[in-house]
Amino acid sequence: MKKMRLLLVVLFAVMFAETVKADRMNSKYAIVIHGGAGSAISNEAFVAAREEVLEQALDAGVRILSKGGTSLDAVEQVIRILEDSPLFNAGRGGVLTAQGINELDATIMDGRTRACGAVGGVTTVKNPISLARRVMTETRHVLLVSEGADQFAAQLDDPAIEIVAPEYFRTEKQVERLKRVKEREKLTTKEKMGTVGCVALDRNGNLAAGTSTGGLVNKKHGRLGDSPIIGAGTYANNTTCGISCTGVGEDFIRHAIAYDIHARMHYGKQKLESAVQHVLKSEKYPIVGGMIGIDLQGSITMQFNTDGMARAAADSTGLRVIKAGK
Amino acid sequence: MKKMRLLLVVLFAVMFAETVKADRMNSKYAIVIHGGAGSAISNEAFVAAREEVLEQALDAGVRILSKGGTSLDAVEQVIRILEDSPLFNAGRGGVLTAQGINELDATIMDGRTRACGAVGGVTTVKNPISLARRVMTETRHVLLVSEGADQFAAQLDDPAIEIVAPEYFRTEKQVERLKRVKEREKLTTKEKMGTVGCVALDRNGNLAAGTSTGGLVNKKHGRLGDSPIIGAGTYANNTTCGISCTGVGEDFIRHAIAYDIHARMHYGKQKLESAVQHVLKSEKYPIVGGMIGIDLQGSITMQFNTDGMARAAADSTGLRVIKAGK
Repeated sequence: MKKMRLLLVVLFAVMFAETVKADRMNSKYAIVIHGGAGSAISNEAFVAAREEVLEQALDAGVRILSKGGTSLDAVEQVIRILEDSPLFNAGRGGVLTAQGINELDATIMDGRTRACGAVGGVTTVKNPISLARRVMTETRHVLLVSEGADQFAAQLDDPAIEIVAPEYFRTEKQVERLKRVKEREKLTTKEKMGTVGCVALDRNGNLAAGTSTGGLVNKKHGRLGDSPIIGAGTYANNTTCGISCTGVGEDFIRHAIAYDIHARMHYGKQKLESAVQHVLKSEKYPIVGGMIGIDLQGSITMQFNTDGMARAAADSTGLRVIKAGK
Repeated sequence: MKKMRLLLVVLFAVMFAETVKADRMNSKYAIVIHGGAGSAISNEAFVAAREEVLEQALDAGVRILSKGGTSLDAVEQVIRILEDSPLFNAGRGGVLTAQGINELDATIMDGRTRACGAVGGVTTVKNPISLARRVMTETRHVLLVSEGADQFAAQLDDPAIEIVAPEYFRTEKQVERLKRVKEREKLTTKEKMGTVGCVALDRNGNLAAGTSTGGLVNKKHGRLGDSPIIGAGTYANNTTCGISCTGVGEDFIRHAIAYDIHARMHYGKQKLESAVQHVLKSEKYPIVGGMIGIDLQGSITMQFNTDGMARAAADSTGLRVIKAGK
């Protein structure tokens, strides 16, 4: 009799666990990507080429999330694809410093635990977003910069952390661009920017956010913008939202923009959409750029106060947006 | 007649301006300093020596503020004195990295304009806090790190930016300490920490905050903690408060602690004292360390959840506190 009761209890427990699991697998997911805010792009071929990469990245993220994968994995994989493309200011396509080299920044953050990792001023790592994730999981630190970050990368025996020669990042386009900026310094602020980012909500209800960039063209050696700064360019917290920013990093640092969106929701009871709108439109925040975010209900926002922002989004209800022009 | 009226107007304008100036000069100032949270110190001679330095620093700040000087000047000068002492983990007394060198971090922020500057991983600058201020005033950037920050310092022709050999920072005490940590890794978290910071309110009602540190003993090359991160270890905003933090930096970054105090006051209508208390006591924030702050009314807070925190404070009402033991 006792054995029978035990068996029944175990049976019910297994059934209950399976139901919970099925519920989770049926629950929603959402993903949003940006490829940098800045000028509106009129070159149709360039827009089409960027949209193709955005689509590849979006599909990779959706594949992970729809199968029940984690938002952290989706964010990392999406950003790796954008970093591998020379069409975005991150990884391969990163802009050059005043000294003509690439110094790359990236951050990743887990909204469930608030674990995070970031790297700044990296010069030899093909995918800075993956190195940021290794800082999160393999060290007791949050932020490693410059030579120390490159040294950490070299010590890892990890296929995701590919070491490349600095020339890998030196695309003809960026060399030309730096020359143009140095000769004339005529690029507008909006033309100098660019960053990639991704926020995802997985079927377990966990948010994650990540950002990766080459920074500002013609920046000083050693300059870090908002992208490697938790709370400035990137934040994720399961109780409110995940956020990734793009724009003039200094202003995003000064006003801790990504954390400010969380705080507006948490302390000010604002909705994600209106919190982001307020920050991008208020004169109190002299912010030039854009933001993407997802709240814990899976609502997606993509906003910018520049002329354009490359962006893409998808979710389990069938939403699908890909735009690289304006 | 016309001339007479003009003369009267000018006379009234001058009298009015003088009254406003006198009002300002009569209005209050406040200053608070920390020398790092950590273990309670029982060595009486060491406590006395530290209190002497804290007193010098406090007096220097009070001298500036009482004469109507700016909170930014007070913060910079106070922190320079603490950086020049080998008794605090900042500047001269900075702890060593795992590779046995000093990598110094500092931030300064102006609550009036939210202008800010920070440096990370500096190895050749005697007073990192002054270099942080030069990043704020002399560049379009907010944060410079590692070699780039040292190069920027070397280019400045400024008596406040003294370049020193790395040996200047290599005190016998820290060499011994690193050896001890490496041999046994037995120091508790509380023993590994230390940072200096200052917050001031000047007679014009402007808040400023600054923080400077050698970081965590035995840290990785290139590791940045919360001290060079705006919103993590330091924040100042005239509408709420100025804040400087000390403790395990990674947790202060993860929760954007300094900005969180501002957000609790701004969006959550909390008072400074209770906002800081909540963050240091709540289980939701796994923070080990302490905070100092001043709100726009000049109320001072000094709190910590470690056994001790070296601290000092003074204001125009006659408050005067200097404690380095517990």
